[in-house]
Amino acid sequence: MAQSLAKLLVSRSDDLYAKYGIKPRVVAAFDKKGGAVEQSGLDLNRLVEVKKKHGSIKNYDKIKSRTGLDIINNVEADVLIETTASNYKDAEPGMTHIVSAMKKGMHVISVNKGPLALAFPSLMELASYNRVLLRFSGTVGGGTPILNYAKNSLSGEQIISFAGILNGTTNYILTNMGRGMSFAAALKDARSRGYVEADESLDLDGFDAAAKLVILANWIMGMKVTMPDIQRTGIRRVTTADIREAAKKKCAVKLIASCNKELVVSPREISTEDPLCVNGTLNAISFTSEHSGTQTIIGRGAGGTETASSILRDLLDIRKEITRD
Amino acid sequence: MAQSLAKLLVSRSDDLYAKYGIKPRVVAAFDKKGGAVEQSGLDLNRLVEVKKKHGSIKNYDKIKSRTGLDIINNVEADVLIETTASNYKDAEPGMTHIVSAMKKGMHVISVNKGPLALAFPSLMELASYNRVLLRFSGTVGGGTPILNYAKNSLSGEQIISFAGILNGTTNYILTNMGRGMSFAAALKDARSRGYVEADESLDLDGFDAAAKLVILANWIMGMKVTMPDIQRTGIRRVTTADIREAAKKKCAVKLIASCNKELVVSPREISTEDPLCVNGTLNAISFTSEHSGTQTIIGRGAGGTETASSILRDLLDIRKEITRD
Repeated sequence: MAQSLAKLLVSRSDDLYAKYGIKPRVVAAFDKKGGAVEQSGLDLNRLVEVKKKHGSIKNYDKIKSRTGLDIINNVEADVLIETTASNYKDAEPGMTHIVSAMKKGMHVISVNKGPLALAFPSLMELASYNRVLLRFSGTVGGGTPILNYAKNSLSGEQIISFAGILNGTTNYILTNMGRGMSFAAALKDARSRGYVEADESLDLDGFDAAAKLVILANWIMGMKVTMPDIQRTGIRRVTTADIREAAKKKCAVKLIASCNKELVVSPREISTEDPLCVNGTLNAISFTSEHSGTQTIIGRGAGGTETASSILRDLLDIRKEITRD
Repeated sequence: MAQSLAKLLVSRSDDLYAKYGIKPRVVAAFDKKGGAVEQSGLDLNRLVEVKKKHGSIKNYDKIKSRTGLDIINNVEADVLIETTASNYKDAEPGMTHIVSAMKKGMHVISVNKGPLALAFPSLMELASYNRVLLRFSGTVGGGTPILNYAKNSLSGEQIISFAGILNGTTNYILTNMGRGMSFAAALKDARSRGYVEADESLDLDGFDAAAKLVILANWIMGMKVTMPDIQRTGIRRVTTADIREAAKKKCAVKLIASCNKELVVSPREISTEDPLCVNGTLNAISFTSEHSGTQTIIGRGAGGTETASSILRDLLDIRKEITRD
């Protein structure tokens, strides 16, 4: 992901300056094994090459012993972009990165869902206390700006409820089961395509969808909830028989994350005529508002380029917010 | 439509003040037969009652001879909300209303597509010359904030092309033809439900879809085009045989408005698996962007409440823009 971002920043650099007057300077970067720092700006092409060649960017310069936290604590920067993997046990190391950066006065863009799923309300409070911005467009819908849509495009409107297919992997599996595959075969196929998380439970048991539901509920509905507030059921018990039953009623079985008084992630039958009923790895969400009916947004879920694009959007948003003050 | 807006302003009044610090005051209103003026603010409940009882709001007060233009030229107001019917011959009386208001320094919210379809580039220039804002969220997608989504939610992204089902009436007719009705029967059914414009050519010959395409092309793609730049074919020649042929390929025939180098409105076959392939009176649009793939938004088309809600959104947007200066 960070590599996609580096490439995007390089390829869009002229355009970003011309269109938005912004020249993002990457002063530091780190991965699991170490980091690279250059206050005048890292050479992003070289950074990507070093990563490719050595498996870590620590070989970018001579200092090998830096950790991410060292870098956050010691480098002067305006924004931290947190891209470590999501986990829903303690959300580390992302949680420490984000908290440390905010305490130092850095704005944060997180595409890591873990910290938000476990501590959204307190992270927002911390951001506000430290007068920094916390943005996370890439956590829900990847390149599809679902959060921004709901928050900004519907201004003046009240969203009453929403329901979405927020995990592309389980949607891919359920779609294939709908075409006759067994759960095991569909899972195997999804794995072979690299769609399944290293820890498959995150997809199959609905953790990923639940994390996104936490983020949506907080950001859009103003609820103060975290992971334990979600009633969560994954797709492991969905059988081909269930899916055939649904098909008789012109329905499909989908893993739906919904907010309608209660916050629930569970497999449910929905009409194949419903715009929400998308197939393959697509994500979709339907917002029901007070005066504008139900509106559905459909798009690709997360992918390297899509997520990089969402980070850029957040960066422009932060820039816009801080220059307004 | 104006009645829906009046009701919405009344019902949301407390909420609008609490949430946005805004207390919209309607200082004048007019219909075909006359108008009502009250600088301290019209009584909107009474206005709706008078309209219902007498068929015109001119009976609201004693002056009976005012025209819309008189009111625009003589009443002090910040914003004109133009809701007269769209026509694509000369766009009157909307065109004169909008131009006069902007010359007087009023911001304009138009849900009338006519003036935009015939003169978008010059109206935008006039707005900019007079330092006023021209907004028109309700013209495309009704309550579904398609324009706002494409313009704001995708900031930092380049939209390369788009294609949409922008006219609910023809979509309703084609959907019913797909279920076996003849064109004549489907048209009759749509008429009986009040879905067809008084001048049915606006729907059937693709004028309505083309007008929306003009607005999208100008606003989102920065093109400077008007109605004559659209290659337009309506749905009158679509036969049930065409639709059966399409169905064999798992496609449906839809009236698609697209921007991909060329601007075209025409009936086309699209896969029933495509998220764009919505049924009934729904509207849908797919934007293809450089880095975030294709994103589809689906929602109800225009309706009284939806359009009123879009006007409110524009009003809040104007308020936000002018207080920023």
